[in-house]
Amino acid sequence: MQIQGPYLLFLGDTPRPLDAKTASGILDWRPELCGGQYRLSKDAVDLGLRDYTPAEAAAAGIRTMVIGVAPFGGAIEPEWVEAILAAVRAGLDVASGMHTRLGDIAAIRDAARESGAQLFDVRHGNGTFDVASGRKRTGRRVLTVGVDCAVGKKYAALAIHRALVKRGIAADFRATGQTGILIAGGGIAIDATVCDFTAGAAEALSPGNAPEHWDVIEGQGSLFHPAYAGVSLALLHGSQPDALVVCHDPRRTHIDGYPDYPLPTLAACIALNEQVARLTNAHARAVAIAINTHRMSDAERARALAAVRSETGLVAFDPIATGADAVVDALIPQREAVLSEATP
Amino acid sequence: MQIQGPYLLFLGDTPRPLDAKTASGILDWRPELCGGQYRLSKDAVDLGLRDYTPAEAAAAGIRTMVIGVAPFGGAIEPEWVEAILAAVRAGLDVASGMHTRLGDIAAIRDAARESGAQLFDVRHGNGTFDVASGRKRTGRRVLTVGVDCAVGKKYAALAIHRALVKRGIAADFRATGQTGILIAGGGIAIDATVCDFTAGAAEALSPGNAPEHWDVIEGQGSLFHPAYAGVSLALLHGSQPDALVVCHDPRRTHIDGYPDYPLPTLAACIALNEQVARLTNAHARAVAIAINTHRMSDAERARALAAVRSETGLVAFDPIATGADAVVDALIPQREAVLSEATP
Repeated sequence: MQIQGPYLLFLGDTPRPLDAKTASGILDWRPELCGGQYRLSKDAVDLGLRDYTPAEAAAAGIRTMVIGVAPFGGAIEPEWVEAILAAVRAGLDVASGMHTRLGDIAAIRDAARESGAQLFDVRHGNGTFDVASGRKRTGRRVLTVGVDCAVGKKYAALAIHRALVKRGIAADFRATGQTGILIAGGGIAIDATVCDFTAGAAEALSPGNAPEHWDVIEGQGSLFHPAYAGVSLALLHGSQPDALVVCHDPRRTHIDGYPDYPLPTLAACIALNEQVARLTNAHARAVAIAINTHRMSDAERARALAAVRSETGLVAFDPIATGADAVVDALIPQREAVLSEATP
Repeated sequence: MQIQGPYLLFLGDTPRPLDAKTASGILDWRPELCGGQYRLSKDAVDLGLRDYTPAEAAAAGIRTMVIGVAPFGGAIEPEWVEAILAAVRAGLDVASGMHTRLGDIAAIRDAARESGAQLFDVRHGNGTFDVASGRKRTGRRVLTVGVDCAVGKKYAALAIHRALVKRGIAADFRATGQTGILIAGGGIAIDATVCDFTAGAAEALSPGNAPEHWDVIEGQGSLFHPAYAGVSLALLHGSQPDALVVCHDPRRTHIDGYPDYPLPTLAACIALNEQVARLTNAHARAVAIAINTHRMSDAERARALAAVRSETGLVAFDPIATGADAVVDALIPQREAVLSEATP
């Protein structure tokens, strides 16, 4: 799945910034991909991009309209169908993270067939994958893992990728979920794969690469989640990470939505992830802890990061507030070990 | 998925008993389900059942023709299509564990639509499942797990189920793979589920039951398998087993087909399975070790079982050679604990 930029971010008529989280995530992390916005009403969220109709966007060289809003429950709103049809007829591809598949709406499917536009349903599986081979690949990999779902694994990976690139180190962000795929323009919706092939899909997502290249892989779920631990384990085994970054939320007391399941301690989470990761990469080790300190004062943030640092002996960072420069420093010794292996 | 007995076992024209493993497995474990056999040639494997044509079988009260042979690669042979059509036209349902779906063959699909026959493709997913809730269910559960794939998890579960029933204890065998499903007449092909719902499918497979009832759940894969560990973990979490039976092959040195992956020690396999099982059932513990001693002399078998017994302190058995009576004894203390909980 490779979605072509630049993007036209579709914002519908929603005035609520929270509903436009997908669009603002893309703009935060890949501003160079965002060619314009398409709003159905003057009251709709304004991301500060140039307003285009689909036809104007196509004329300006924009390639894909991305559904950037997700109001309730992930369905495609009836009012959007005309807008999507306009995009398809203007020759734009359309990418959506909705539950409803674009191609399940007959008018959209027919129009796309006629114009040759591609429809990307990034929440759904695409393609088939081989069973994992377990064979070691060249290149280096870092995977974000977590004490729970929704603790910042995507943002941690994006921040690490940004910090690596800023340091001049070759790196790719590898997306495993719908929003990550829209941000990256590609990836694999790992939780939509058939479980026999999930580890194989993770292998396909980060193929062999140059020895000093880093893949920064977006994690999913948690080994401590009663519904999703199997997804997390398959992704961990297929990714064969050299380095793990553990995402934590010190304010959470139990698995979100599962009040009977207490949050694991950070020590337990590090230990189990390292233990099972070593099945496919004997050198896997945790190098950093990411914390979302969004609602904290500066003093609270400093205290929270220091506490985690002293508890684990690892780098502690907030993907947004502090960035991930310190993680790059923790990764570099591994990179130098690789380079010295490569030049004996 | 509930396949109706009695079965007509379809044997094609294969003279090789190994090709008829599915049919002989059904006959070994569920003889009461086997109403007859249908052979396309006098040279075909003879299971000692009465020979019927599909029309005769239907007249005799048989409900389903089961494809009992699997020659090469799991495809439906062109020569079988006429036989399957005859079964469908005679009003029999047809169940198959082949890769090719019955319904993908237009003539079969059309004939089934006309006669109202059901087509069961047990290798493929059926139905959708909820995300796992993680909520504790009533009833007791034992799950077979393994050091690797293909170390006897299905036969161990079938033997435990048989031993429980013989002892007058209410129990169900819960099948998770194609052959198991054909033997049981129902179940869920767990490795064909979408990974986000795999643990949820495992929850659906063994619903809440009477406190003293045992579900004996067929395991899949291994936590030490680089491709399938995620499947095993999701099945383990969703099953919430009280008891684990670890299936082992002392002659194997590495994961089958993965020469770089040494077989785990029995101690490591017990420890990791117990540790992660306790996420969803704090009382989970290993109670027995199953070994396939098929090719051993009596003296070798006795030595192998004694060695495992002394290494682990647990019951050791061979599902075929010794049966699983000793496993029932190991389960009963748990059952009595439940009954005493239930009657204070």
